Amino acid sequence: MLEDRLHAREKLLFFNKEYIAEFVYGGIDGAITTFAVVAGAEGANFNTSVVIILGLANLIADGFSMSVGNFFSTKASRDNFDRHKATEYWEVDNLPDREVEEIREAYAAKGFQGELLDQVVEVITSNKEVWVDTMMKEELGMTQDDKTPVKTASVTFISFVLIGSIPLLSYLVAGSGLHAGNTQLFLYSSILTGVALALVGSLKSLVTQRSLLVGIGETLLLGGLAASLAYFVGDVLQKAFS
Amino acid sequence: MLEDRLHAREKLLFFNKEYIAEFVYGGIDGAITTFAVVAGAEGANFNTSVVIILGLANLIADGFSMSVGNFFSTKASRDNFDRHKATEYWEVDNLPDREVEEIREAYAAKGFQGELLDQVVEVITSNKEVWVDTMMKEELGMTQDDKTPVKTASVTFISFVLIGSIPLLSYLVAGSGLHAGNTQLFLYSSILTGVALALVGSLKSLVTQRSLLVGIGETLLLGGLAASLAYFVGDVLQKAFS
Repeated sequence: MLEDRLHAREKLLFFNKEYIAEFVYGGIDGAITTFAVVAGAEGANFNTSVVIILGLANLIADGFSMSVGNFFSTKASRDNFDRHKATEYWEVDNLPDREVEEIREAYAAKGFQGELLDQVVEVITSNKEVWVDTMMKEELGMTQDDKTPVKTASVTFISFVLIGSIPLLSYLVAGSGLHAGNTQLFLYSSILTGVALALVGSLKSLVTQRSLLVGIGETLLLGGLAASLAYFVGDVLQKAFS
Repeated sequence: MLEDRLHAREKLLFFNKEYIAEFVYGGIDGAITTFAVVAGAEGANFNTSVVIILGLANLIADGFSMSVGNFFSTKASRDNFDRHKATEYWEVDNLPDREVEEIREAYAAKGFQGELLDQVVEVITSNKEVWVDTMMKEELGMTQDDKTPVKTASVTFISFVLIGSIPLLSYLVAGSGLHAGNTQLFLYSSILTGVALALVGSLKSLVTQRSLLVGIGETLLLGGLAASLAYFVGDVLQKAFS
């Protein structure tokens, strides 16, 4: 079955599809931010070890900062859901007639009519939880998300550090002692940034079953644009600091 | 009515509650990242104008990088929804018995039974779109999100730049010519970073109707931790570049 095949593929990727959005977000930002640090260090002719230290320090700090933002973002989404749910409970208690009518409208839109519609409305509104749940889904189009702030923040951090360390790989492999100003190491890092973006793009496409080529292409295009901007800023930074 | 009062409050805030998650995410990351740049510049005794240039350049580049990550994150979420919807259409076409049974289970759980349950299942499964829509909401707990990638990315960018410029305010007010190494300007910037985080925290609480004090407190606590880490990294950066 298609669904089983999807599940198998997801297990193969060791990746929970639910968190693909967080992984993409953290990975893209991690790769570009690290590239910006490397770009800033490049012109300054730093030792490889300095680039590695700067890159890793930035990965941790920026990754943590992004995770904190993500934590409160997920929390705000959940709070927003809870607030709407509380409002629906309030309305069911205080404006039952209006809420009954809204259930009726929702089920009429599904094709129910006449006596059957009356009966359906009666069953749904006889249980307050079912009633509110139906209002949330049908009127507001909101479903409870299983994703907790701690989990989305963790996936963001892991992805930021994991994908964000790829642009540093050439420096890590070269080891310390070599000059980072070395055009070749920076060229490798630029290519690796492209690889990191393509990796995120292809993972995204695999999980969401969109065209692989389009997925890689669009990530490289917009990500490359952001990286170019970051390079320019890195250059400004480097000139200011030197 | 409560809901009307909520809508009025949202209009008062000139803020669409739907995008509160993106605003919180971009704002927190923007404030902390800018503070990191200011912290790095502080030890280096830069001119105020240099700090402003560095800060603004970072705001644009990092804000754009984050928006690109957000764009693909929202896109991945939507693609994930579309993929599941396609799977449900496939299942309705190829495994109708199983899918009819799942609708039956969903409505039995709502309190329907006997002949009424049969009738409800019949009406729902007589329209393929209603059938799939019900499977999406009831089985998968997924609803179509109105938020488009362009909109979530735009809110992220605007919030990043808007909130992220607050830690720069002391330098902007002081104007160019003064020394940024000036401990006072940096102290103001630290306080302003706290104000920026508190602002995001309180806006979040206002929209989601949670305790204002808790909202500000938790944002200040975790955001302050991230800012401290960023300060440390800024320090490392400054020592490396000088």
